[in-house]
Amino acid sequence: MHSLSEAQSLDAADALAPLRQQFDIPAGLIYLDGNSLGVLPSSAATRVQQVVQHEWGTGLIGSWNSAGWMDLPQRVGDKIARLVGAGPGELVAADSTSVNLFKVLSAALNIQRADAPGRTRIVSERSNFPTDLYIAEALTAERGLSLVLADTPEQLPDLLDERCALLMLTHVNYRSGRMHDMAALTQAAHAAGALTMWDLAHSAGAVPVDLRGSGADFAVGCGYKFLNGGPGAPAFVWAAPRHAGRFWQPLAGWMGHAAPFEFTPGYRPAPGIRRYLCGTPPVLSLAALECGVDTVLAAEPLGGMAALRAKSLALSEAFASLVESRCADHGLARVSPREAGQRGSQASFTHPTQGYAMVQALIARGVVGDFRAPDILRFGFTPLYTRFVDVWHAVEHLVQVLERGEWQDPRFEQRAAVT
Amino acid sequence: MHSLSEAQSLDAADALAPLRQQFDIPAGLIYLDGNSLGVLPSSAATRVQQVVQHEWGTGLIGSWNSAGWMDLPQRVGDKIARLVGAGPGELVAADSTSVNLFKVLSAALNIQRADAPGRTRIVSERSNFPTDLYIAEALTAERGLSLVLADTPEQLPDLLDERCALLMLTHVNYRSGRMHDMAALTQAAHAAGALTMWDLAHSAGAVPVDLRGSGADFAVGCGYKFLNGGPGAPAFVWAAPRHAGRFWQPLAGWMGHAAPFEFTPGYRPAPGIRRYLCGTPPVLSLAALECGVDTVLAAEPLGGMAALRAKSLALSEAFASLVESRCADHGLARVSPREAGQRGSQASFTHPTQGYAMVQALIARGVVGDFRAPDILRFGFTPLYTRFVDVWHAVEHLVQVLERGEWQDPRFEQRAAVT
Repeated sequence: MHSLSEAQSLDAADALAPLRQQFDIPAGLIYLDGNSLGVLPSSAATRVQQVVQHEWGTGLIGSWNSAGWMDLPQRVGDKIARLVGAGPGELVAADSTSVNLFKVLSAALNIQRADAPGRTRIVSERSNFPTDLYIAEALTAERGLSLVLADTPEQLPDLLDERCALLMLTHVNYRSGRMHDMAALTQAAHAAGALTMWDLAHSAGAVPVDLRGSGADFAVGCGYKFLNGGPGAPAFVWAAPRHAGRFWQPLAGWMGHAAPFEFTPGYRPAPGIRRYLCGTPPVLSLAALECGVDTVLAAEPLGGMAALRAKSLALSEAFASLVESRCADHGLARVSPREAGQRGSQASFTHPTQGYAMVQALIARGVVGDFRAPDILRFGFTPLYTRFVDVWHAVEHLVQVLERGEWQDPRFEQRAAVT
Repeated sequence: MHSLSEAQSLDAADALAPLRQQFDIPAGLIYLDGNSLGVLPSSAATRVQQVVQHEWGTGLIGSWNSAGWMDLPQRVGDKIARLVGAGPGELVAADSTSVNLFKVLSAALNIQRADAPGRTRIVSERSNFPTDLYIAEALTAERGLSLVLADTPEQLPDLLDERCALLMLTHVNYRSGRMHDMAALTQAAHAAGALTMWDLAHSAGAVPVDLRGSGADFAVGCGYKFLNGGPGAPAFVWAAPRHAGRFWQPLAGWMGHAAPFEFTPGYRPAPGIRRYLCGTPPVLSLAALECGVDTVLAAEPLGGMAALRAKSLALSEAFASLVESRCADHGLARVSPREAGQRGSQASFTHPTQGYAMVQALIARGVVGDFRAPDILRFGFTPLYTRFVDVWHAVEHLVQVLERGEWQDPRFEQRAAVT
């Protein structure tokens, strides 16, 4: 892509372009941060209001049945399942990604404790999302096990040995956008007798995922990024059907009980994935999540995740190439993989010192990306609503920020970063 | 209360009566189930719409700072703290009651493991809310500890011995409405070297609670009952300030980290209660919870929890007395305590066989209570919006249901109960 008119032509030829109409996007905003918080689906405003006023306000307690609140975690889960290669009844929307991770790590370790007690390690990467490492660190410490971290993806195969209980990876790295080969790594882990847990936070709704086909054991993921579920939307959790009747996890709340309203003493886990539910789900947030998931499912008649993926790669490649060609000599280095097969739905660059200020200067111009400490400028591409002209204009703004030195404005100085 | 006109006089003299105007209550409905799901505060519909359309839709990722989403768990927590005798910075709104219970049980057991490793029991009651027992059962099983259950409150003191690590109780029993003496039991537990954990699900917003004054160690509670926070609203968790810098729990998610956005490896818990946060909070549900909590705080200028308590007791006593006097010979037996000091904000009756059908017949008449297996008819009184005339009419309806045998309608037959 070498010109605005070329970008316009690409948009005109884009069969997915009408999907953008599903969203309320502020006029003039170029939003390249759907990997952090997806934009508002128009349906969500209406739906949430309906839940608040009619289901809560009028239906009150009866809405647990009459409005289907009881089934919501499973109903939304079944929809997400279609986006990640899972079947109905295998996935539920619940809690946060961190809490769900705790559940599946516990379940996986419990399986291994029974089957292979000598396996005492969780293997992951140092570059994994910190909260994943915190949870794994806490759990392994609690159980006298250990968490072993690879410094590079290339080191992973060597760590898959007879000591490894579980390989825990995030499919697409939140900083670099590098994507693992889920099938190959799962196969390698299984060959070594280990189970696998995949964090799909930056994958679900962004890249094709085939949980069943890849042979994965467990997965968790996030509702508020590429699934457009709204701020702090509930997360999701999946277990392979072969583990479904067996696994056990300690967050044994009543919603995961086989018969929650019998109020019987003694926990009896629900069959299958419902045993991963714990407490009462936040219905308002869950209803918004369903609207978000529906925006991705709306792509199914247009080619689904494969079509979204093709557009996503075209967007991120166009952006990264333009930045490289037009912003040379400003110290930006591309870190997201050039190989399409290894890249998620984002483009990341490093700058040794001024990444934060550059991102702030862009935001001031209405181009929203984000900064990830210590040095990453991150730009996400949600093919449902991002246009090729957005890419063109975003780079145009970046060029001006750099050439005019706008990032030197004291307003953009790095303080404690929160977003 | 012996007549409708007396009920009308009580309402006319009720200084709290204007607080009902804070809510959208369906016309003609007599809602005695605020102990299961509180009614909709009018402000919540507006507020949630604002969060969806302006904060999410327009502010997008920037709203984590500009709209104060980052501070929401603490801000709402500080408000709830005022209702339960806790100070600012001691309580956060987060996750579900079940998940929070797991956190504090873990923290309490970790403290005891360090201080008194010989203490291997959690003591509770068989009549405690099942999910509390499930979580305790799971955690003690995981750690090779044991959960010991008293069959009656009178047995509790004997179980507070050198083996007891933690006394875990629900302050107001969900079925009977019986309320424990928090200060006395906490003192007895401490005298025996045990810590205490109080579940305030049926207390917060319903009865005065003095966490600090009673010397309690940990507490959790529910946002969607008497706090009117909406279906599945986030729960809350409190730790006594003396434990605040010390306790540790394994749900070590990034929002509980001292500096979540530094993305550093190695979990470093935030100072104080923030370390009880785990994943990203469900903002829509949390915003609605704040509106619900505000409806209770609105009583502060009118006497606060003490005034609400006086009205609550008058309501539940009026209801229970009327049922006893007007529904004699129909097999209903009062189970909620007659002594005001031992009663929460509800009135419960047993019926040996037809409780479910009676509740359904009442609901068909627009009087909403609920049934709790195996045999409890439960009626909750939220003094913010329940009127004395509601009590009068509710009993009038019950009398007719019983005298006309309306519960025999096959529509009301018990199947798998969900609400």
